Amino acid sequence: MAQAGRLGTTKPTWIVDKERGRKADARETIWLFGLHAVRDALLNPAREKLRLVLTKNAADKLGEAIAASGMEPEVVEPRDFKVPIDDGSVHQGAALEARPLNWGKLEEVCISGTGLPLVVCLDRVTDPHNVGAVLRSAEVFGARAVIAPRHYSAPETGSLAKSASGALERQPYLRVTNLADAMVSLREMGFTLIGLDGDGTVPLAEALAAAGPGRAVALVFGAEGPGLRDKTRETCDVVARIPYSGAFGSLNVSNAAAVALYAAGQR
Amino acid sequence: MAQAGRLGTTKPTWIVDKERGRKADARETIWLFGLHAVRDALLNPAREKLRLVLTKNAADKLGEAIAASGMEPEVVEPRDFKVPIDDGSVHQGAALEARPLNWGKLEEVCISGTGLPLVVCLDRVTDPHNVGAVLRSAEVFGARAVIAPRHYSAPETGSLAKSASGALERQPYLRVTNLADAMVSLREMGFTLIGLDGDGTVPLAEALAAAGPGRAVALVFGAEGPGLRDKTRETCDVVARIPYSGAFGSLNVSNAAAVALYAAGQR
Repeated sequence: MAQAGRLGTTKPTWIVDKERGRKADARETIWLFGLHAVRDALLNPAREKLRLVLTKNAADKLGEAIAASGMEPEVVEPRDFKVPIDDGSVHQGAALEARPLNWGKLEEVCISGTGLPLVVCLDRVTDPHNVGAVLRSAEVFGARAVIAPRHYSAPETGSLAKSASGALERQPYLRVTNLADAMVSLREMGFTLIGLDGDGTVPLAEALAAAGPGRAVALVFGAEGPGLRDKTRETCDVVARIPYSGAFGSLNVSNAAAVALYAAGQR
Repeated sequence: MAQAGRLGTTKPTWIVDKERGRKADARETIWLFGLHAVRDALLNPAREKLRLVLTKNAADKLGEAIAASGMEPEVVEPRDFKVPIDDGSVHQGAALEARPLNWGKLEEVCISGTGLPLVVCLDRVTDPHNVGAVLRSAEVFGARAVIAPRHYSAPETGSLAKSASGALERQPYLRVTNLADAMVSLREMGFTLIGLDGDGTVPLAEALAAAGPGRAVALVFGAEGPGLRDKTRETCDVVARIPYSGAFGSLNVSNAAAVALYAAGQR
């Protein structure tokens, strides 16, 4: 950086890094797989699609969706079905390379989006099954968005799409540069930030009642194990707990999110 | 059967079948795998353990649990680690052959068991991840038992144990011959049977309020897709729905169970 500054005409390193990051984002593609996930994506006009690789069998089953998408599939023999997805993925002979969906700006989605004034923030939840299940529940309970940091959270993949059971194409999933900054923006928009953690100071129902019936609420969850990071926890207005009767264990993050989304709708 | 009757001294076929079934149940063994599941089972004195197969590495990590169990592990090279579990199972070099846990009679567990007077019935939920997640949530919310038919539901396997995150060793999971019969027994014990389905006639909170605050409740769930079978549905006292705000989708069964268990505890 010092050298860049001395030369004067060279861009500072942080700008170069940021531009590189943007280019990397623009280049980023994902591989969706499985008949359901591929069909949902083919039928989504907002999804930028790049390559469709299918076995003959899968192509027959996806006929209408392929026609609707206007794509030209690469039909291959099952033994030649080679796409960059995890070994053991149940792809059913269908894979689609696509760009992540662009849901637009945080403000636009959270202020004027459809659904209840309710959003979910996920602090470094990296398991695609959990994030997929949260997207599914968020859609069912009418939340406006699921918000997660760009790094250290599950990217849109076939596994995530499968757990989301179609919700990946419909439920806004916003990846932000900095989660705490996004939470501060949410507070400025009028959201009450309720963190959920086993050591929360008040029961969930009490925290929701205190926020008030019409108030916009952001429910904030950490990953299993580490929980909410310090910065995330400090940024919350209140940290609440889901009351447990059993002596052991804690809820899986997607189950905790379903409970909290339900409770938020019951105010 | 006619022939058996004619011979007189021969047992009727249905008795032979029943005895064969009992012998098959007695012979039934399961393979648990993965460091966590195997450790939990080794430390559970109620778990009848048969064979422990470990890599050297896993044996080192499980040292204390092996000592506590008194078992003699078969330590093998990673390339010789061959046990009858699904390909692709993340076994971490640890597998334990064991018998399913014997939780005793329905009446004993449901009447005098620990926890709230609250049980979960699963009607042919076959996905081990879902059943495992339900066991975990049932334990967290202090339910006395998860009840499922012996056939057409997920057996105790390594995958189920993993999703249950330790709850398989602690949360009663009763497999009954006939689910509708078990539900009738629960009603006779004093349980209100609340089925959960998207087309339920009343919202969940209303059904729970109608049951009354102290009343024992059984929450009954069907598999994704088919939902509650006719006989199961007819046996319920009421079929309730979880209110959704979104236009699409429905909850995953384990998420629905978590929501209903939470709501039952909030009465």
